[in-house]
Amino acid sequence: MPAQLLDGTPIAEKIKSELLPKIKELTAKGATPHLVALYVGENAGSKIYMNKQKSDCEEVGIKYSQHGLPETATEQELIKALTDLNNNPDITGIILQMPLPQHISMRNVRLNIAPAKDVEGITPRNLGMLVMSDYKLAPCTAVGAFELLKSLKPSLKHLDVTIVGHSEIVGKPLMLLMLSSMMESATPTVCHIGTKDLAFHTKRADVLFVAAGKAGLIKGSMIKPGAIVIDIGINRVPVLDENGKPVLNEKGKPKTKVTGDVVFEEAKEVCSYITPVPGGVGPLTVAMLLKNTVECTKLQKNL
Amino acid sequence: MPAQLLDGTPIAEKIKSELLPKIKELTAKGATPHLVALYVGENAGSKIYMNKQKSDCEEVGIKYSQHGLPETATEQELIKALTDLNNNPDITGIILQMPLPQHISMRNVRLNIAPAKDVEGITPRNLGMLVMSDYKLAPCTAVGAFELLKSLKPSLKHLDVTIVGHSEIVGKPLMLLMLSSMMESATPTVCHIGTKDLAFHTKRADVLFVAAGKAGLIKGSMIKPGAIVIDIGINRVPVLDENGKPVLNEKGKPKTKVTGDVVFEEAKEVCSYITPVPGGVGPLTVAMLLKNTVECTKLQKNL
Repeated sequence: MPAQLLDGTPIAEKIKSELLPKIKELTAKGATPHLVALYVGENAGSKIYMNKQKSDCEEVGIKYSQHGLPETATEQELIKALTDLNNNPDITGIILQMPLPQHISMRNVRLNIAPAKDVEGITPRNLGMLVMSDYKLAPCTAVGAFELLKSLKPSLKHLDVTIVGHSEIVGKPLMLLMLSSMMESATPTVCHIGTKDLAFHTKRADVLFVAAGKAGLIKGSMIKPGAIVIDIGINRVPVLDENGKPVLNEKGKPKTKVTGDVVFEEAKEVCSYITPVPGGVGPLTVAMLLKNTVECTKLQKNL
Repeated sequence: MPAQLLDGTPIAEKIKSELLPKIKELTAKGATPHLVALYVGENAGSKIYMNKQKSDCEEVGIKYSQHGLPETATEQELIKALTDLNNNPDITGIILQMPLPQHISMRNVRLNIAPAKDVEGITPRNLGMLVMSDYKLAPCTAVGAFELLKSLKPSLKHLDVTIVGHSEIVGKPLMLLMLSSMMESATPTVCHIGTKDLAFHTKRADVLFVAAGKAGLIKGSMIKPGAIVIDIGINRVPVLDENGKPVLNEKGKPKTKVTGDVVFEEAKEVCSYITPVPGGVGPLTVAMLLKNTVECTKLQKNL
């Protein structure tokens, strides 16, 4: 029996609709949430993403601006610009837009984001609050994937959860979220490129999160029957015809599409729930970014 | 064949001997490491522990003081005392001594320790740096247990590791330490009171860390043959005679002894290495406290 789709859109819409009155209230008090994207240089993909951020913010009444530095900006100049935004009381949230030029260390810059304006939940202090299970600002994709699971399983007790991918903004925060209750936590395992037998761990998982960024990594045979599969991967791959050859577009270039890390057609015959890609975790990531922006505003204005 | 003992003392002594020249150098520059234990009220156990800290510090040339507040001190008064120590340039490290009176929230107070004086590695910022695999100050017991494992296994790649206990100062930091390398990480699982089948996870582990604080929790039958067993539990239990009755001391009170969470006599017949309790992780915890105190001094004095 094919799995049910775990659609992120209605859950994201519910979160956004719950934000609306809060944003109205903040605005009425003269404390409109104001998110700024700080970026360096010109990047087509990043521009599309920022336009999306803008319309997502405006949809719920969050003010959105962009602050760009030239491609040649130094790390010191970027940190200076960030510090100015940290100190600007009109700005309540800051996104450090990726990619940064190669001569700038993303990590060094990140350490300088004011934790109370850290809408992405990626500063050491906010990651540490997650270790302490006392977080207000968690990384958007991780907490979005967590919310998807919670929509099916309010208690995680007795669940064996396998997380594929050990990045510091998805895999590790997800693991910490799985452990954030004293009595009702799941039992998480984190797999990655150094794991001896990936299929052993995926096949025994009641819940499988995949955030490896590798299309086709998880086949149907690697999934436990009845499992919940949450696919966090976003990969652009060529569209193939029935003979396995790339389909070309009208300009003669290979057509591409977005897929996750899980072989969807196989997986849906085995598991009980599966997220579509796109449309699963993605809408939740956006909703969590907006929620974090509101949370930051409340933290700064003591509201 | 019985397991080999994984004795913490020689590894701890090596770490301490490596600290000696560093402490001499800092002292020569007028920056002697100075650890202060901040405590509230009188507690016999805590006093014994602080005396031990004193002699450990003095052994390597670290200055050690105690700063006590009366049992009736409020949370605000404790935070005020802590802030004074944060601001005192003569103090380079602070331990917030447990237990605190019930009317004080340990968590609230902890949030106020200056991260650069956080010798226990328990502030949000330092826990967050652990998530980012970029830590200088990790929780002493977790990083001590990690060092014990590294003494046997310089690379953790392909190892399946089970951690029993999900506390924020041992279990979760240990999990993060297991994941701190991009290519050479272990594959960790964290078990706890909400785990469905504890024995399944312990029995498949190449490395088993136990930090549940429950004597006798891990029986020999729950261990994989040839595993490395690192027992972090410290439990005071009655000494029993061959009939299972408590042995009394000269005052007619039940005699007690310290044991870990693992049934040592059973486990040593199954595993390849096992830590004794006491004498396994304990000496490493002390060594890491001293190492963190030196690290804090260097951070503050930019040396």
